[in-house]
Amino acid sequence: MAYRAAVAGGSGYTGAELLRLLESHPEFTTTVATSREFTGRRVADVYPNLRTDLTYSELDPATLEDVDVAFLALPHGASMEIGARLAKAGVAVIDLSADFRLKDAALYPEWFGSPHVAPETLADWVYGLPELHRDEIRGARAIANPGCYPTAAILALAPLVGGGLIDPATIVVSAASGVSGAGRKLTNDIHFSHVDANFKAYGLPTHKHTPEIEQELGELAGSSVGITFVPHLVPMPRGLLATCIANATSDADPSDAARAMYGNEPFVRVLEGAMPETKYTLGSNQCLLGYARDDRTGRIVAVSAIDNLGKGAAGQAVQNANLMLGLPEDQGLGAGGIYP
Amino acid sequence: MAYRAAVAGGSGYTGAELLRLLESHPEFTTTVATSREFTGRRVADVYPNLRTDLTYSELDPATLEDVDVAFLALPHGASMEIGARLAKAGVAVIDLSADFRLKDAALYPEWFGSPHVAPETLADWVYGLPELHRDEIRGARAIANPGCYPTAAILALAPLVGGGLIDPATIVVSAASGVSGAGRKLTNDIHFSHVDANFKAYGLPTHKHTPEIEQELGELAGSSVGITFVPHLVPMPRGLLATCIANATSDADPSDAARAMYGNEPFVRVLEGAMPETKYTLGSNQCLLGYARDDRTGRIVAVSAIDNLGKGAAGQAVQNANLMLGLPEDQGLGAGGIYP
Amino acid sequence: MAYRAAVAGGSGYTGAELLRLLESHPEFTTTVATSREFTGRRVADVYPNLRTDLTYSELDPATLEDVDVAFLALPHGASMEIGARLAKAGVAVIDLSADFRLKDAALYPEWFGSPHVAPETLADWVYGLPELHRDEIRGARAIANPGCYPTAAILALAPLVGGGLIDPATIVVSAASGVSGAGRKLTNDIHFSHVDANFKAYGLPTHKHTPEIEQELGELAGSSVGITFVPHLVPMPRGLLATCIANATSDADPSDAARAMYGNEPFVRVLEGAMPETKYTLGSNQCLLGYARDDRTGRIVAVSAIDNLGKGAAGQAVQNANLMLGLPEDQGLGAGGIYP
Amino acid sequence: MAYRAAVAGGSGYTGAELLRLLESHPEFTTTVATSREFTGRRVADVYPNLRTDLTYSELDPATLEDVDVAFLALPHGASMEIGARLAKAGVAVIDLSADFRLKDAALYPEWFGSPHVAPETLADWVYGLPELHRDEIRGARAIANPGCYPTAAILALAPLVGGGLIDPATIVVSAASGVSGAGRKLTNDIHFSHVDANFKAYGLPTHKHTPEIEQELGELAGSSVGITFVPHLVPMPRGLLATCIANATSDADPSDAARAMYGNEPFVRVLEGAMPETKYTLGSNQCLLGYARDDRTGRIVAVSAIDNLGKGAAGQAVQNANLMLGLPEDQGLGAGGIYP
Repeated sequence: MAYRAAVAGGSGYTGAELLRLLESHPEFTTTVATSREFTGRRVADVYPNLRTDLTYSELDPATLEDVDVAFLALPHGASMEIGARLAKAGVAVIDLSADFRLKDAALYPEWFGSPHVAPETLADWVYGLPELHRDEIRGARAIANPGCYPTAAILALAPLVGGGLIDPATIVVSAASGVSGAGRKLTNDIHFSHVDANFKAYGLPTHKHTPEIEQELGELAGSSVGITFVPHLVPMPRGLLATCIANATSDADPSDAARAMYGNEPFVRVLEGAMPETKYTLGSNQCLLGYARDDRTGRIVAVSAIDNLGKGAAGQAVQNANLMLGLPEDQGLGAGGIYP
Repeated sequence: MAYRAAVAGGSGYTGAELLRLLESHPEFTTTVATSREFTGRRVADVYPNLRTDLTYSELDPATLEDVDVAFLALPHGASMEIGARLAKAGVAVIDLSADFRLKDAALYPEWFGSPHVAPETLADWVYGLPELHRDEIRGARAIANPGCYPTAAILALAPLVGGGLIDPATIVVSAASGVSGAGRKLTNDIHFSHVDANFKAYGLPTHKHTPEIEQELGELAGSSVGITFVPHLVPMPRGLLATCIANATSDADPSDAARAMYGNEPFVRVLEGAMPETKYTLGSNQCLLGYARDDRTGRIVAVSAIDNLGKGAAGQAVQNANLMLGLPEDQGLGAGGIYP
Repeated sequence: MAYRAAVAGGSGYTGAELLRLLESHPEFTTTVATSREFTGRRVADVYPNLRTDLTYSELDPATLEDVDVAFLALPHGASMEIGARLAKAGVAVIDLSADFRLKDAALYPEWFGSPHVAPETLADWVYGLPELHRDEIRGARAIANPGCYPTAAILALAPLVGGGLIDPATIVVSAASGVSGAGRKLTNDIHFSHVDANFKAYGLPTHKHTPEIEQELGELAGSSVGITFVPHLVPMPRGLLATCIANATSDADPSDAARAMYGNEPFVRVLEGAMPETKYTLGSNQCLLGYARDDRTGRIVAVSAIDNLGKGAAGQAVQNANLMLGLPEDQGLGAGGIYP
Repeated sequence: MAYRAAVAGGSGYTGAELLRLLESHPEFTTTVATSREFTGRRVADVYPNLRTDLTYSELDPATLEDVDVAFLALPHGASMEIGARLAKAGVAVIDLSADFRLKDAALYPEWFGSPHVAPETLADWVYGLPELHRDEIRGARAIANPGCYPTAAILALAPLVGGGLIDPATIVVSAASGVSGAGRKLTNDIHFSHVDANFKAYGLPTHKHTPEIEQELGELAGSSVGITFVPHLVPMPRGLLATCIANATSDADPSDAARAMYGNEPFVRVLEGAMPETKYTLGSNQCLLGYARDDRTGRIVAVSAIDNLGKGAAGQAVQNANLMLGLPEDQGLGAGGIYP
């Protein structure tokens, strides 16, 4: 009855969050968790927060073909071959890297430094943002799970771009993420003593999440969109806020537009009389939105908060898996955020 | 089918955590959440992390008598009357204050400054630490849910005191808690700018959790026990670590003693080759234990980590409710801790 | 030999930082520290980090007239009368509130809710940003010390606006501050458990620091400038980053423009091959600048980091006092930031 | 007139703090800063908080012999040879490692895993805790600068052990340090996402600072002392608190004993009616002490707060240098702690 699930790359932060979510999901049984670094070690020894009895194994494509749904939380580039292979084998695949997010193969060398190894397969992948592509996701075998910044920025801006409330050519996204977004690897940039009580911009001027935002907003706008995207690092482990600013092109209330679009969404909430704070999304699949008009300057400010490992990664991946398998969309994702 | 649950004092941190846990518990439907401060406001507006449709109401004993299980997360002293009344009315009551934890009525004026208003009811209440009192809890109608520090300290020390591995007269407990333990009220002590990057001892020399630890350890020792308990404040919202030190009275391995006692416990885990860290318990009902012998000085160090709002309060309360109602003990509490 | 200094409002964060800086300044002896809340208490008991023997006194204008230099760190509005009186009495006055920053009296009711009580005195005050107004400050008796956000934003943008590198009509400032910027008062917004690991925008869409930025940039541009300013709260006690984005109007290198303007400044440093991080300014009067061009979209990103209580308040006030009294500009301000 | 100073190991946290303190010390000119990792790079590029024009050089003993005072902030073991050589060459040497702290050569293999390479030189070194050994320090050429934990623990306990207020055989020290105490190197233990909001004990049961505390307390007690020392890690960059507990052997007031001992000390302050908090020592050379009697159990609790990089390392080293060179003891160390 339950579906067998695999997590490839199960010892990174995203992989561990997937294991945590699957552990309490009533319809999934995780049968495979791979890790190069921790092969042979019990998952619960590496992550004492988890209760699973699983042991990490090496990444073996044949083993992965044997599950119902495979979550790929591998380094960028590493999913290109195995993702295509699993999809062909009939496994429901959700890839959490950027390897299949861009439909235009020409963008890979420009943004990631090398061409896509299987450009002919790009058309098979659906961009897994349920609020924009739910029906396609339901019928898909292969999902490119959105990046964390794109999830937040696109959800905040979609009602404005789609509804013609702003001029897409003027969009500036100033966003900020907790440190887990940088992954589990060790660099001076993640030393506690350096990060704590510190705030900075990084990745200027061309962070790799930029084209993904432009692709989805461009589709909504009906023409190509170029944005300026400035990410920042916040001294907190999780949480992501996107502050999006653009010139208004109508008098419509942006909150009304967002509520019209998201009124029935299980995981998107438009706040009234308050602005989103990342804290309220901690550990959940929730996205909180808030809007303000700056009538002095004729601009609209749209703000979006998510947990970068939740709706920004593992939570959204489980949401996509639920949709692909015909399960209730919020199954296993019902828990509210941890507060405080 | 589902049990109707009430949370009295539902806008404090403990009350909000109860609401969060009950929200995703398959057998409970929360029908009442009371709050003096927020009466009439939607719970999800006060706590945007929660998804419930409930609205806070005033505390009304008659309404509470109408539920199957009542969780009382009221200020100290406020449960004494209503707790007794609800228990008499046949409601399963779990009180999260210190109002019914001490069996000896004489201790209330000494430690809390005023006598107990209903000392004759104290005998009706079971100290709700399932690892020590599971059978009594199963048959009880009224549970005094343990304090956060006592939960951690007693779980760490019980195998040592019970097994005669340490001299109870030499026990020193140096513990540290995240700031949510101080509650939601505003004082200079909880100003972010003051607490962040700060560490201090407080409540010296007689914190109110002391007699609770002494009562339970005394019961295990078979004679009265006096401990020195020094709590500290850690710049983090949640998490609690108890470091307990005492003179060894045997050569037995403390980890073995703990494993013998807790081997089948769903929420207690004795670590091997590692010491507990609070991070791994975040948002969960887990207790992690670790032991070390200092053979140079003939002492044993026992360390225990919990989430002060989880196993230290709301999680343990739900565990007790499950036991009282004959549900699986870990129902609704299966999620692993949030990491990182 | 030494100048007698007074700090009015000496128990707020800015006042306490002034006391700390003056304590180790070789040319100042602090003779008066006022505090409504702590009148009669020793400063070193309220702030054990300080070593002074001073006792807080009530605010008494006559006493303040008796010093050489008076720093006013009072709530907004409270300086209007006493500031004018002290300046008239010949005391060198540095006001750290917004009470005298705006030259156009009409802006006070619009941005602060009530008219200025002494609009005729506004012309006597010099906007105390030494990098723009050093000569005027040297000759002044009354200084309006800039706000923290304006200090960061103006220093970042001045070389671009002054040099014609950007279109002022397109300026967006997305900035973020540590929590001490909100002051010492208690509100739910500064509860440690709420702020920690949280990030949010606030004050939308019209934060009170906006007109100050517009005034100074407008002067540089030679015409009125309207900006969109979005402040955020970072879970750290101190530190402020301003990320400023605008359309480029020339191919000039923004870093070169900044170095040309700030090459001899003691407290402004333009980074090469790195972007500013707030951590490196902690406790100092330093401002770090960094620039990037986004040639895809034709925009320039200017980033500025300061300590909001240092260059953003008390440090800059001491720098202004040094200039007014003919002392070396960096006297008492030589210490590098605390790291890590 | 000014003394030439060298910092060997100038790119670790302690070395960088020495450079910061020396930068604003009126009697020292730093002429050498060595770093294996950053040889050839400007100090101010590696540490943008510093304003010095120095460039890191390789460690060259001949160059170090050419200064007046040499601070050695090298990894443990690396000072043994060069320290002895510099002392012989007449340089005032302050070693911040553990290489010369223990007078008994037999303790090195036991606690550090290998024997001392120059045991015959141990007698030349003075344990640099001015509050206990000021006169010896004044006449010394070679100082073993105390560890951070020992500084805090010894200062808290010295009045009690020296005055016979406690039984030394019962001393337990439960201490906690900020993360900079673990140094600048990269390990999983210092990953921000792991450390933030986390608290744990470590180094059990025999942390390397233990024998140093025992040596100094043993000297005060007049007989050998064995303590149990349990360090913890606090999610903050700096700050160290030592909570020391022992059986009382007299009715004397511990605060009085401490005030009698430290009344004239420039950097030790015994608090009245308050307990120490690490925050108030940030960036300073201050030590705050507080005492409580637990008369129920007959124990005394002594608490001590310092900045582990200040009084616990670099600040104390400068204090020692001042004493060795006949300068005012607090020169260059007068600044109060940064708050908040």
